[in-house]
Amino acid sequence: MQFVIIGGDAAGMSAASRAKRNLPGLDVIVLEQTSDVSYSACGMPYNIAVPNSAIEDLVVRHAHVFREKQGIDLRTGHRVEIIDRAGKTVMGKDAEGREFIIPYDKLLIATGASPRIPDLPGFDLEGVMTLKRLKDGRKIKDFIRSHNVKKAVIIGMGYIALEMCEALRARDINVDLVKPRSEFIPWMNPDMASMIREEVEKNDVNMYPGHEIRGIERRNNALEVVCSDLRLECRMVIVAVGVKPNSELAEGAGLVLGPSNTVAVGKDLGTSDGDIYAAGDCADTFHVVTGQKAWIPLALRANRAGWAVADNVTGKNVELEGVAGTSVFKVFDMQVARTGLSMAEAAKYGFEPVEVVIKSRSRAHAHPGSSTIAVQMVGDKKTGRLLGCQLVGKEGAAHRINAPAVALHQKMTVEDFSYCDLAYAPPFGPTWDPMLTSANQLIKQM
Amino acid sequence: MQFVIIGGDAAGMSAASRAKRNLPGLDVIVLEQTSDVSYSACGMPYNIAVPNSAIEDLVVRHAHVFREKQGIDLRTGHRVEIIDRAGKTVMGKDAEGREFIIPYDKLLIATGASPRIPDLPGFDLEGVMTLKRLKDGRKIKDFIRSHNVKKAVIIGMGYIALEMCEALRARDINVDLVKPRSEFIPWMNPDMASMIREEVEKNDVNMYPGHEIRGIERRNNALEVVCSDLRLECRMVIVAVGVKPNSELAEGAGLVLGPSNTVAVGKDLGTSDGDIYAAGDCADTFHVVTGQKAWIPLALRANRAGWAVADNVTGKNVELEGVAGTSVFKVFDMQVARTGLSMAEAAKYGFEPVEVVIKSRSRAHAHPGSSTIAVQMVGDKKTGRLLGCQLVGKEGAAHRINAPAVALHQKMTVEDFSYCDLAYAPPFGPTWDPMLTSANQLIKQM
Repeated sequence: MQFVIIGGDAAGMSAASRAKRNLPGLDVIVLEQTSDVSYSACGMPYNIAVPNSAIEDLVVRHAHVFREKQGIDLRTGHRVEIIDRAGKTVMGKDAEGREFIIPYDKLLIATGASPRIPDLPGFDLEGVMTLKRLKDGRKIKDFIRSHNVKKAVIIGMGYIALEMCEALRARDINVDLVKPRSEFIPWMNPDMASMIREEVEKNDVNMYPGHEIRGIERRNNALEVVCSDLRLECRMVIVAVGVKPNSELAEGAGLVLGPSNTVAVGKDLGTSDGDIYAAGDCADTFHVVTGQKAWIPLALRANRAGWAVADNVTGKNVELEGVAGTSVFKVFDMQVARTGLSMAEAAKYGFEPVEVVIKSRSRAHAHPGSSTIAVQMVGDKKTGRLLGCQLVGKEGAAHRINAPAVALHQKMTVEDFSYCDLAYAPPFGPTWDPMLTSANQLIKQM
Repeated sequence: MQFVIIGGDAAGMSAASRAKRNLPGLDVIVLEQTSDVSYSACGMPYNIAVPNSAIEDLVVRHAHVFREKQGIDLRTGHRVEIIDRAGKTVMGKDAEGREFIIPYDKLLIATGASPRIPDLPGFDLEGVMTLKRLKDGRKIKDFIRSHNVKKAVIIGMGYIALEMCEALRARDINVDLVKPRSEFIPWMNPDMASMIREEVEKNDVNMYPGHEIRGIERRNNALEVVCSDLRLECRMVIVAVGVKPNSELAEGAGLVLGPSNTVAVGKDLGTSDGDIYAAGDCADTFHVVTGQKAWIPLALRANRAGWAVADNVTGKNVELEGVAGTSVFKVFDMQVARTGLSMAEAAKYGFEPVEVVIKSRSRAHAHPGSSTIAVQMVGDKKTGRLLGCQLVGKEGAAHRINAPAVALHQKMTVEDFSYCDLAYAPPFGPTWDPMLTSANQLIKQM
């Protein structure tokens, strides 16, 4: 049997490795259009922050290991252009422009996502860059060095924008952040979002939310990001306004699409074609809180979905219930984490949401070095269920989100969650963990 | 109605405060034998570490606040000696030796626990001390200062012994740790226990497990801890070999006792007398993994049980399912956490336990500053259930234990837990969180 995989990063290589482990006799072919496979894309901002590091440090496993140790037929520089479902082949061109046709018994589409680029003038100028693939990180790093960048503008204020902002400040580059929407972090409680904004501004970053962008212009050796009421001069622009799934191949093959133009898959990761799977950033998923389809392009679910596809291709029956929408990022000294639904999302999905926002401490009463931990917790008044949680703090915020994440998978009520036996010692939190204090407060609203 | 509470720390004052909040007209009398109420006992080692801090900094709420702002009749220096269940009164003596008799409608026994002291010669010598009540911390602090202590021996190697060891080293006091049992941390996987032992020894602490203690002797201005094959000289001895519940009053009143001579209570915290509750370190509880009675004297469950008693006394019906046995401590730069059952405990309770021990990293691939996180995870081969988890690491161990703790409350299988959507970002862990990697490995054993 021949298992063909389009795309050689998180989902694709996870699937390839596991399929060969499960069934060593299986022919596994991976077709990757770039020259890079199996790298930590999320690590790029931290690598860019350090001038003397190589972006290749982020490669988790090199191509020759997949080929020689694992027996995977990994072909880089191979771009698939057509999936012929009737003939069960994929067709495309390699790096030298030679055409290839490869038959498949089972096919995995793991084509990932691409940065969204606003359809405005000047976004194709030299020095205007995005960050998604390893080559993007390489390009940004090279550009900073070769052009001795001292000033950058980042368009967007999501987690990649904020991580890149920290990375550039670490290299002593002045940074302006600009975006059209006036809310800084729209899915977050505004008081908690201001804690993050203060942290960013404290690090000498200028924030310009609420400025419609008209385009980017070249002016001598500089670029200018032009807004209706503002012009921001710089040497480099990072565009970080979100991503879109690479679902063109699937769409061209007539597969059913899901939310945000993802490839629609079932819990077994199968598409509308019984021999074709999709996994990773290009595919949709189920949200365990809403039970509905969602698109949440993050690394863990890509790896996990890759494994599940491999299991299903090799004769096990694996179904993934879905994701809780758990994510975390760091910006300067602030940790930001979320799981489940925001108030607006909960209302949109027909819940009757109530929320509390509490401020607690990262260490016990009178313990030195303590800092504020802010928690927003959302519950459903109708059923008592926990729906979501958000955390901001300088320590102890990141890993705390995992307890409510497990609770969401189990569809726990806020009250049941409030009775959980969470850990306590003075260096790590108050006796009542901030997760429990917020749950105790939320119960009163329900 | 008169609600009388014996004991004014975590469980007692939590119950008193909540009872008055629930029902402001209720007469609430708290009888506390010492002069201290509502303090962070767990914070004492960290306070002792800092010479210029006052032990009173650990008082969370002062007696006058309870009396004047909350309307609680708080009587310090009141030692209860007899509970007369037939007459529904408690009798005892105040600090001046005057007898008192106080009637109750509902009574809460929240008498806590006391340090165990080996029945061996010399444990009553000056300079031999324990740490449980605030006065103990005060005494240790005063003794270090007035005797200019440069060398101490700690008997015991549990979490209080280790926290005190760190505290004394912070004050540049040389420390020997000694105990009879040869295993350093008996409930922990030996490889993981050695990581902790190395950390302690790296801080110039001498460890002597496996030395039977014969007694303590005075020699001029010094003390000597005498073992069969070893004599350890010092100026101060801290005895930290565990605690025993203060259940003598309950036993004298004929109430049913539970494991380790605790006061036996139901899920509503009621004792065998319908008008008497017990909560905190003196009472037993249910373990959510075994469903059996257990004694786990820790701060969170004491506070929570105090609240539940208050709710039940004031007409709500609250039942606590029990504890997962979650705990965490820090020793020097090492975080140690556990929840649920060890292998030995799981076998004892009739499970068919299997375990894995994995070593993972605290940050992502190629992320600077990463350190080892070791995880032991225990599951039940018969049912697939997750039974317990232990964690050791320099960062990110403490709060990670809460996700498996929630899973234990929900009686999740290891497989279901392995599918949870836990947070990932490079500064906080690998894509597959160590909790998930250990679960994935454990599944293969089951």
